[in-house]
Amino acid sequence: MNNWTADVQTLLGQSKVCFLATQGQNGPETSMAPYAIHNATILLHLSKLARHTTNIENSPAIGLMICTPEKSADSPLALPRLSLQGRVTPVSEKEFESAKSAYLKTIPDAEPLFSFADFSLFQLIPSAIHWVGGFGSARNIAVSDWRALFAENEGEMP
Amino acid sequence: MNNWTADVQTLLGQSKVCFLATQGQNGPETSMAPYAIHNATILLHLSKLARHTTNIENSPAIGLMICTPEKSADSPLALPRLSLQGRVTPVSEKEFESAKSAYLKTIPDAEPLFSFADFSLFQLIPSAIHWVGGFGSARNIAVSDWRALFAENEGEMP
Repeated sequence: MNNWTADVQTLLGQSKVCFLATQGQNGPETSMAPYAIHNATILLHLSKLARHTTNIENSPAIGLMICTPEKSADSPLALPRLSLQGRVTPVSEKEFESAKSAYLKTIPDAEPLFSFADFSLFQLIPSAIHWVGGFGSARNIAVSDWRALFAENEGEMP
Repeated sequence: MNNWTADVQTLLGQSKVCFLATQGQNGPETSMAPYAIHNATILLHLSKLARHTTNIENSPAIGLMICTPEKSADSPLALPRLSLQGRVTPVSEKEFESAKSAYLKTIPDAEPLFSFADFSLFQLIPSAIHWVGGFGSARNIAVSDWRALFAENEGEMP
């Protein structure tokens, strides 16, 4: 693996939440959600009661960012981060058990939410991926390279 | 001050970056930017070379989130966070020096960027504000209450 792939893996290991940009009635809206990776898609476990879920149901094309958490020692100008564009779809019945298992491996606190009727598992299938590694270090990542990153680990991140 | 105002102040003191939801050509996009608060508006110092700036110029209604940074001890399900909706406008010439001074007080690393021709100061004027304090703790904040929060501190956050 070259440098950017190692840096992306580091980011994904450090950050358990992502920021969504969804289409609201009066413009784009941002929200936060825990995420996990499964078969190179981004799993989201969302409540029908939350506005981002209504927005996604109305307009499944969203933006999603995963950003290195701030520490007082980091410059806020240069946090390594990934931004993805793609469409969100419900996880199929066939995939549900393996996706749930991957999600809970990453976000064990979410276990009780799987018994709530208003929560469902969704997945973002990335169609465009952009990586900013810091100052002067930015590149697009081809979807095939993104998929290869997870194929090496049998589809899941630590 | 009651409890939510203290919690909002704590968040604003902990987090120097925000996440934007801007209107891209193929749907909403998310990005990261440092921010500062000035006269109850959110200051952003953005490069014309960045896609979020083009998006804002085309469509100034955006979403903006400020979220408590993750630590390994926090549950990723319950990070206190603010989400705002509003319109972004360039900072006026009249306000520029006081806004620049407020911005650099919060983001001192950005000083060299003020000599780059492609960077400009913008401000988000919030029209809707939503606060999630954790599990089962969410409320809208009236714009007048938001403004009052900063009036007590002469318009700026620490």
